[in-house]
Amino acid sequence: MTEDFFAGIGRIPFEGPDSANPLAYRFYEPDRMVLGKRMEDHLRIAVCYWHSLCWPGSDPFGAGTFDRPWMAAGDAVAFAERKMDVAFELVGKLGMPFYTFHDRDVGPDMGSLRDTQAVFRRLTDRLAECQERTGVKLLWGTANLFSHPRYMAGAATNPDPEVFACAAAQVRDALEATHRLGGVNYVLWGGREGYDTLLNTDLTRELDQLGHFLSMVVEHKHRIGFTGTILIEPKPMEPTKHQYDHDVATVYGFLERYGLTGEVKVNIEVNHATLAGHSFEHEVATALALGIFGSVDANRGDPQNGWDTDQFPNDHTELAPTLLRLIEAGGLTTGGFNFDAKIRRQSIDPTDLLHAHVGGIDTLARALLCAARMAEDGSLRRHVAERYAGWDGELGRKLMGTGMDLATAADTGLGLDPRPRSGRQEMLENLVNRFV
Amino acid sequence: MTEDFFAGIGRIPFEGPDSANPLAYRFYEPDRMVLGKRMEDHLRIAVCYWHSLCWPGSDPFGAGTFDRPWMAAGDAVAFAERKMDVAFELVGKLGMPFYTFHDRDVGPDMGSLRDTQAVFRRLTDRLAECQERTGVKLLWGTANLFSHPRYMAGAATNPDPEVFACAAAQVRDALEATHRLGGVNYVLWGGREGYDTLLNTDLTRELDQLGHFLSMVVEHKHRIGFTGTILIEPKPMEPTKHQYDHDVATVYGFLERYGLTGEVKVNIEVNHATLAGHSFEHEVATALALGIFGSVDANRGDPQNGWDTDQFPNDHTELAPTLLRLIEAGGLTTGGFNFDAKIRRQSIDPTDLLHAHVGGIDTLARALLCAARMAEDGSLRRHVAERYAGWDGELGRKLMGTGMDLATAADTGLGLDPRPRSGRQEMLENLVNRFV
Amino acid sequence: MTEDFFAGIGRIPFEGPDSANPLAYRFYEPDRMVLGKRMEDHLRIAVCYWHSLCWPGSDPFGAGTFDRPWMAAGDAVAFAERKMDVAFELVGKLGMPFYTFHDRDVGPDMGSLRDTQAVFRRLTDRLAECQERTGVKLLWGTANLFSHPRYMAGAATNPDPEVFACAAAQVRDALEATHRLGGVNYVLWGGREGYDTLLNTDLTRELDQLGHFLSMVVEHKHRIGFTGTILIEPKPMEPTKHQYDHDVATVYGFLERYGLTGEVKVNIEVNHATLAGHSFEHEVATALALGIFGSVDANRGDPQNGWDTDQFPNDHTELAPTLLRLIEAGGLTTGGFNFDAKIRRQSIDPTDLLHAHVGGIDTLARALLCAARMAEDGSLRRHVAERYAGWDGELGRKLMGTGMDLATAADTGLGLDPRPRSGRQEMLENLVNRFV
Amino acid sequence: MTEDFFAGIGRIPFEGPDSANPLAYRFYEPDRMVLGKRMEDHLRIAVCYWHSLCWPGSDPFGAGTFDRPWMAAGDAVAFAERKMDVAFELVGKLGMPFYTFHDRDVGPDMGSLRDTQAVFRRLTDRLAECQERTGVKLLWGTANLFSHPRYMAGAATNPDPEVFACAAAQVRDALEATHRLGGVNYVLWGGREGYDTLLNTDLTRELDQLGHFLSMVVEHKHRIGFTGTILIEPKPMEPTKHQYDHDVATVYGFLERYGLTGEVKVNIEVNHATLAGHSFEHEVATALALGIFGSVDANRGDPQNGWDTDQFPNDHTELAPTLLRLIEAGGLTTGGFNFDAKIRRQSIDPTDLLHAHVGGIDTLARALLCAARMAEDGSLRRHVAERYAGWDGELGRKLMGTGMDLATAADTGLGLDPRPRSGRQEMLENLVNRFV
Repeated sequence: MTEDFFAGIGRIPFEGPDSANPLAYRFYEPDRMVLGKRMEDHLRIAVCYWHSLCWPGSDPFGAGTFDRPWMAAGDAVAFAERKMDVAFELVGKLGMPFYTFHDRDVGPDMGSLRDTQAVFRRLTDRLAECQERTGVKLLWGTANLFSHPRYMAGAATNPDPEVFACAAAQVRDALEATHRLGGVNYVLWGGREGYDTLLNTDLTRELDQLGHFLSMVVEHKHRIGFTGTILIEPKPMEPTKHQYDHDVATVYGFLERYGLTGEVKVNIEVNHATLAGHSFEHEVATALALGIFGSVDANRGDPQNGWDTDQFPNDHTELAPTLLRLIEAGGLTTGGFNFDAKIRRQSIDPTDLLHAHVGGIDTLARALLCAARMAEDGSLRRHVAERYAGWDGELGRKLMGTGMDLATAADTGLGLDPRPRSGRQEMLENLVNRFV
Repeated sequence: MTEDFFAGIGRIPFEGPDSANPLAYRFYEPDRMVLGKRMEDHLRIAVCYWHSLCWPGSDPFGAGTFDRPWMAAGDAVAFAERKMDVAFELVGKLGMPFYTFHDRDVGPDMGSLRDTQAVFRRLTDRLAECQERTGVKLLWGTANLFSHPRYMAGAATNPDPEVFACAAAQVRDALEATHRLGGVNYVLWGGREGYDTLLNTDLTRELDQLGHFLSMVVEHKHRIGFTGTILIEPKPMEPTKHQYDHDVATVYGFLERYGLTGEVKVNIEVNHATLAGHSFEHEVATALALGIFGSVDANRGDPQNGWDTDQFPNDHTELAPTLLRLIEAGGLTTGGFNFDAKIRRQSIDPTDLLHAHVGGIDTLARALLCAARMAEDGSLRRHVAERYAGWDGELGRKLMGTGMDLATAADTGLGLDPRPRSGRQEMLENLVNRFV
Repeated sequence: MTEDFFAGIGRIPFEGPDSANPLAYRFYEPDRMVLGKRMEDHLRIAVCYWHSLCWPGSDPFGAGTFDRPWMAAGDAVAFAERKMDVAFELVGKLGMPFYTFHDRDVGPDMGSLRDTQAVFRRLTDRLAECQERTGVKLLWGTANLFSHPRYMAGAATNPDPEVFACAAAQVRDALEATHRLGGVNYVLWGGREGYDTLLNTDLTRELDQLGHFLSMVVEHKHRIGFTGTILIEPKPMEPTKHQYDHDVATVYGFLERYGLTGEVKVNIEVNHATLAGHSFEHEVATALALGIFGSVDANRGDPQNGWDTDQFPNDHTELAPTLLRLIEAGGLTTGGFNFDAKIRRQSIDPTDLLHAHVGGIDTLARALLCAARMAEDGSLRRHVAERYAGWDGELGRKLMGTGMDLATAADTGLGLDPRPRSGRQEMLENLVNRFV
Repeated sequence: MTEDFFAGIGRIPFEGPDSANPLAYRFYEPDRMVLGKRMEDHLRIAVCYWHSLCWPGSDPFGAGTFDRPWMAAGDAVAFAERKMDVAFELVGKLGMPFYTFHDRDVGPDMGSLRDTQAVFRRLTDRLAECQERTGVKLLWGTANLFSHPRYMAGAATNPDPEVFACAAAQVRDALEATHRLGGVNYVLWGGREGYDTLLNTDLTRELDQLGHFLSMVVEHKHRIGFTGTILIEPKPMEPTKHQYDHDVATVYGFLERYGLTGEVKVNIEVNHATLAGHSFEHEVATALALGIFGSVDANRGDPQNGWDTDQFPNDHTELAPTLLRLIEAGGLTTGGFNFDAKIRRQSIDPTDLLHAHVGGIDTLARALLCAARMAEDGSLRRHVAERYAGWDGELGRKLMGTGMDLATAADTGLGLDPRPRSGRQEMLENLVNRFV
């Protein structure tokens, strides 16, 4: 441990809604009981390693803008250690219970896979010490199968089986490290599992490769006794033109196809939903309906920009109905809200990292409080139940019964002239506004 | 039969690529042999009833612009008969083998479902006579479950079971009419099977209703001995905010969920692919890879407009690679290319209907000829095969073998340093350009 | 006057933030003083005639769902009078100060332009009586130059000069009616002033026609002594593929080109901003910067749907920063917030119209209160001023001075190595959240 | 000069449409006379330095994939010289008449602006020698005001006047170098002249800074006797959330505002048009109508991806109507078609650079030949002239006359009932297809 990176700033305090202190929580109070559960346990917030510690502030048109000592040229391992200390300083000052990482965030690429593996092993031992020292836990680990040029044409879906094997090496090690560190989930994001052009792509082969790879991961999880959840993170595009894990519904079909529905769930990212042409609430609702909801990458996109802007969430009014839906479905189990979010390229001061996280955390906390008030009120829930009440009645039960056939239903229908009922959308939107 | 609607115009002739006659085919030659099959049998083109005969040229900001005698006020059944004659005149003058319809295109709404059913029955008998007289066949029928106000909140997914029963009545009758008329497919487009707001929607219930409804349709198909294909037409949105049959991959997951994968295929519309953020080629390739490709609604969208513009296809260069893919997968079986396309609102003359179809038909024919040249050349196919050749080698077969596990694959990978190979996208794009 | 359409409902009361009455205002209190001005005078809210009174609940895939007695077949003028009474009942029960109309909302199409003109004249006299009786005022009038088939290829930009003349007739009458009724603005929305395909379009001619038409409108305004503001409403597309009044910046260039910058301002619609790929705040900020801000059509689009959904606003957090910007620029003058918003097609009960307006009005009122708190706090304003402070210093004044040339500026620059400063985006976003 | 980078490949030959040689032109024949002008002089194609020579194949999710010797660590100036030789080898082997560069493509950043300036000066002298030796000419130069961190908040629009001065230094030097090298245009692309958030932005100030800066550039151009064209390149977003030079119409308004309309024209990039929600043809047509067309950055975007994919053009059917429009407006003057296009990240072999350019060049040549056939045929031109013929008649001339007023036009209109005429869109689309 060296000196503080966020010098002069202590642990972020809770000061309540009226505080004007920009580095205090106005809503996030970990121990506050909300619907019978601690706020911290509702939200299970994690800080991510890559955006906050590893990204230099570059974009496709410009070099990095951040002055982070550990990004200079020099001893890669020493810098990785310095970065690790700052990561735990950040998580600790924010008072968050969890963090998340890619293998390459923690252990640098040392040239060969074997040397890289060795360094990663040593640095994950050091991670274990940091966890021990701070009490911070690992929400999930993952393997970076997209930055190295070898993965330019995919990892599991690469036309070259050697690359598939390299990917297996990284995932095995990252999964085992996650297990060793007590991680409660393991994530696969297929950033290059897709295509740039269909002209050179054998879709059937690539899907089968991906299904086979995932099956091996699931089998290995059981073999080593990892009890966490395996999560796929859908994203429709970027970096490739099209990615196979396009959205929640697509991932569901993929899991069904390869017999993995009971084994794998989804890690839903807000901005990825946006890129897929869905609302975040849609993706969560779909995952809950299909029984594959797992965890959340909390961020936001820019509705006018067609790429992954990965901004910190800042609109509690948008998140509250989704949190309500999640709470009413039983809430998070192994999942959490991971800040897969990055500060803007112009936010060059260390303190900007704190502003961003404090704002994002408070947005989640405030949305939770709104959702809890809606849950306690119960009006929304009752409205939906009443709208579908006919299906619990005689006709509804008959029509949905196993013996029902089209001809019988049709004969019933011929004599009917159902009276349309208002969908009440505006009234319900106003109702939500009473609670946000 | 009364006088011709397209007065003074006979059957559209084939005149070859150099013709300057705007009402002649330059590429469409039904009997020309292409890769051992008649062009007509490759393309199986259908003219649709609704856009060409039923739509008055209205849009959300303006009234109809078309002067069609059968759209005036008056005797609905007589007008339906006049419209039917014009429909067969159109199909006949174009020389197309197929047509398609919704129940309400053929038989008007007479108020009650029973009266509507009776008129529909009589008019489908008249359709049979028209088919008999002209030799035109039915590619598919479908039921309009979206125009009547009773379906404003969905048909099978309506919160009111009475509406579900009405939908069953319509689908039973439309399916049986299709069967009677020798139709080779039956389509379900879930235009209102979706939601306008999640706030009033029980997603789980609605998906189950939809799955149950579709299962009943499949069971009824077998009961009445209909051997055609049941098709779902994906569309992501419009008229609702979100439709459940979002895209091909979503429909696949839905079919898997309700055990219908072997029974139901997809009818892919080009413009619906665009609205879902996919290329048409992607949707076709995905359906082929997942084994659910059925048929095509041939049209195009406007890449700058976010709604279903349903324009006639006019770019053979874009369609050729998709046709190649389809041909190499064995080509159409029961499916066809249905012109679910409408002329522009300013195209108010009857002759515009002919220009539009002639252009669309020639675009398909030209694309087919380009695809055939590519298939005969074989370079694209060979390039893809070579790119994945490693998977047919020892390492590839071992890694994809059933006994393979992650640890073994990982150990293999640790010692490798695969050499990246160029994806050759630009060269392949140029190669395609040699044939279009 | 006949019986109430919104039977059993009186004037919507203000009941404060804690009210659970869905038909009461929680924030809208017309006489409340906010930054020294009455809330009503800040917002100048108008109810629009067309969406609320004239639209039957149809969409491109389905017929009308609303049961409005005045939309039945029958005496068009009598129905127009009934509709007018309901319009004033609605505005009155909502307690709004303003309304807005198209000529054809008020007076039906009677076949010929002359007959239509005569009926419009009589009905606008009746409008004057309604205004007199209720105290409701006219925010603006406009002419519907898009619904009638004669305008299918544009009004002022039509290839047929006869249509241009018809448009002139409608605009003259609508402008004079607006003047007679004491309207404080007159709006032109060029819904069909655009193109469906460039292949048949002479862009230069059409732009010149549009510039000439607008110049005549401005000249006529002065001739008749109308002192209200002429407003153009930008929209990028829909119903046409492309509309000339694409967005605020495009309209500015158009006004400059035809020498109309001092004479015409913009009426910015939220959903039109969305369709143009802009945030509403961007369009307002741009109009303020260019000196052409006029008025607002308050609604919202659906970020996942690519057409004009025209929903009622319901997110005060999104509107507050825009209102702050507007207030700090001096606030509204002749303009207002017009609810160019429609209820959903499933919202079929009269009461849904009230829910929608109450929600929208309260959203604006709440956003105003948030904006006022931000204005009083002043932190945002100060932050921006400090960020640009260098431009008020010696170097800044010198570089922006009239005598400055590139070479001198360049020589200055050569010796500099400016220190980047954080843009503080996250901190500022959090700051806004303190007030919403 | 060292050995060839594209070893074993000579100058790309023309072999005609039937050639199967992937590294031969099938359509590009520089000396072929087309409508009385050499093909080369019609197209004036340029190869760009940055994408082809400077971009390492990185994307936001992965490191560079290209093995280019001059991108290694080492002597920056020696590498710049090697890169220059490869650039001229590339242009020469392609047989192109022009190239384009940013200052930093040619001369590396040496730390201070003064040192950078000195090296740039030396290397541009070397460029002059390369031009002399090869006969290749400079289409345009530009300054990179976006990659260096100092420009993270804009160059001319930076809140810090020191950055404005640094930008002046770079533009002065790049403009003078362009002049010295005989460049025929100078381009300004405002990649960071925009905002990431309106919360910290003073729009009025920034627009004034940008107008002032551009005025100084124009004044300097005249001072040094540069007779080329100053070009602004519109782009709506990326890297910033919003850029001020949003699209052609926006730039036109900006030029009008700052009195620069006669001095500055636009460099239209295809992919930037796409990102702005326009077709490329729209942007060209708009620039021609407004009199500010200058030059073209030839590339294409991916219609499914919301960022600048900058792919090489490969669809001659899409470009032909735009080329027709340009030819009929008189064709290029100082402008050209610059390949601001990059190969895909997986196209890692030097030969891929050649495939990409050969395909793009042939696409332009083929589109030109199609456009020429359309121009010679004249049908499209005649159709448009006939469509607007009424405006050349008595009524049209009267209505557009300077003495016309709204009341007179209105009185004329009252007696009319114009007959709608078909817009013939489908027939015209088919007509175009006869020539592509």
